[in-house]
Amino acid sequence: MSGLKEKILGAVKDELLTIEKELEKNLDPYLDLVREIAGHLLFSGGKRLRPLLMVLSARLCEYDDEFGFKFSCIFEYLHAATLLHDDVIDGAGMRRGKPVANSIYGNAMTVLTGDFLLAKALSIAAESGNIKVMKIIGDITGDMAQGEIHQLSKVGDVTLTENEYMQVIRNKTAVLFMGACRLSAVLADAGEEAEKALADYGHNLGIAFQMADDLLDYTADVETLGKNPGADLREGKLTLPVIYSLANADEKDRLLMEKIIKNKEFSANDFKILLNLLNNYGGISYTSNLALEYVQKAKESLKCFGRSETLDILYLIADYASERKG
Amino acid sequence: MSGLKEKILGAVKDELLTIEKELEKNLDPYLDLVREIAGHLLFSGGKRLRPLLMVLSARLCEYDDEFGFKFSCIFEYLHAATLLHDDVIDGAGMRRGKPVANSIYGNAMTVLTGDFLLAKALSIAAESGNIKVMKIIGDITGDMAQGEIHQLSKVGDVTLTENEYMQVIRNKTAVLFMGACRLSAVLADAGEEAEKALADYGHNLGIAFQMADDLLDYTADVETLGKNPGADLREGKLTLPVIYSLANADEKDRLLMEKIIKNKEFSANDFKILLNLLNNYGGISYTSNLALEYVQKAKESLKCFGRSETLDILYLIADYASERKG
Repeated sequence: MSGLKEKILGAVKDELLTIEKELEKNLDPYLDLVREIAGHLLFSGGKRLRPLLMVLSARLCEYDDEFGFKFSCIFEYLHAATLLHDDVIDGAGMRRGKPVANSIYGNAMTVLTGDFLLAKALSIAAESGNIKVMKIIGDITGDMAQGEIHQLSKVGDVTLTENEYMQVIRNKTAVLFMGACRLSAVLADAGEEAEKALADYGHNLGIAFQMADDLLDYTADVETLGKNPGADLREGKLTLPVIYSLANADEKDRLLMEKIIKNKEFSANDFKILLNLLNNYGGISYTSNLALEYVQKAKESLKCFGRSETLDILYLIADYASERKG
Repeated sequence: MSGLKEKILGAVKDELLTIEKELEKNLDPYLDLVREIAGHLLFSGGKRLRPLLMVLSARLCEYDDEFGFKFSCIFEYLHAATLLHDDVIDGAGMRRGKPVANSIYGNAMTVLTGDFLLAKALSIAAESGNIKVMKIIGDITGDMAQGEIHQLSKVGDVTLTENEYMQVIRNKTAVLFMGACRLSAVLADAGEEAEKALADYGHNLGIAFQMADDLLDYTADVETLGKNPGADLREGKLTLPVIYSLANADEKDRLLMEKIIKNKEFSANDFKILLNLLNNYGGISYTSNLALEYVQKAKESLKCFGRSETLDILYLIADYASERKG
């Protein structure tokens, strides 16, 4: 498993270095403070998965590497903007093993730096001179905000359905992955088939990625996760392992689970009981299998492209999405 | 004075009704909750000054009215987005005589609804099919965020200079006015002279408007203002009346002012003492006169356009900017 991650990192080492440089270069605020706050999150060891997807997709479409790298920043800035706004929202204490920005700089600065990053993403996108690119970025931004609002409006709601969960993770996560992959085809003018193939790849990958992320909150330890497990539940966020188990539990166990969920101050022992029930009622394996199905779909989406080193890396990333441990 | 406001409102009654309808129509979220939260602020009796400026500028450039109205929503949505984020930041209790959105819906929903409105502004702008429009909107958004951050980073700083104050209000306020006026010339392809004229008008108007706004915090009463006077100071925001007076006061009075400013819990009597000093050291009249100068500059910017009913309204709006009472 961890071999997969190292294999990918080995194959894209140079690309990740270039992405890092571009992220530094394009940030370009007039205030040093903005660089400091944005940098606190932005340069704290993110995976750079979204810009990497853009760069690799662009290569698949034979788009000029130089522009591919530049425009790939759009997706890391958008991602960082939502993380900064999320931190204000969640009030979470740690991210990537560091205290969250708002605990150092306050909510106000954190919200505004998120706005700045969002604006920066737009300004870079506008440099493409391509209006379809702008439409895609505008729609992604709106979908992400609505996905987050949707999720937030269902906090603590034990009647949340799998369908609604899918709608939430599509908007809050998958549209950005989809955008990163699709945009390169649009920029490269690679045609409808390539655009659809890459959009589907990104979408399915994003769904698998979010499901794996939601699983980690139940299966990983604090070091791997960079935060405490069970954090989603403590915030009242119900994800697929819980939704599926609630739907399939008998009356007695369902009530027990609901009791634990509704008490956000649940003990370590409560969490253990819940984890057992998630395993017994198949919530963990169901989510894990469904993530694998989406990985499979993601790979199949790219069948119109001929075999290449780049394609192989995109396959590896798909495998990694569902298998990652952190 | 209030005759001026009524004269403008009489002249643009139909336009304001159409703007209202467009704001409702183009909002179009997939979640009812988003409409509710956005609507709480958006449909609470805003002046619609920014969309109105866009519509009037568009007419001056003989741009199609229908599109002028549609794209004018961009500026009210952007404005509302920053107000929602500001409310989270300021923690202010009231806006437009109503409790602020975050006191009802919480910080999280309020930040995200702001993000949604920002995204909506972009998506509408992208429908113009004009990449220069997108670049302008992206840059405005970045400038506004940096202006707010700049202001926030200087909270309680009694060494803030007039130059820095100008930079802050340019970014946080004037660029949006400038954008609303300039964009119509870009959309109408009205040429560089018209674009520059309208940009200058919007910029100067925005500066005058913000100065007048900052004055109101010292001169208006709670009913006119919709919130308590002295609110800026209570948040540690130093504006021109204070900056100018501090720079011109003798040692003793300067120290007295600084003492009042630094104690954010200042009493009504402290505020009265401060107000007296602002009058004595000319901070009030200096700001008021400077606002008038910018109004004059705004009007002069439009001299390349022939006389018309629309031009007359833009002149009236310029006069109103510095004379308004709320």
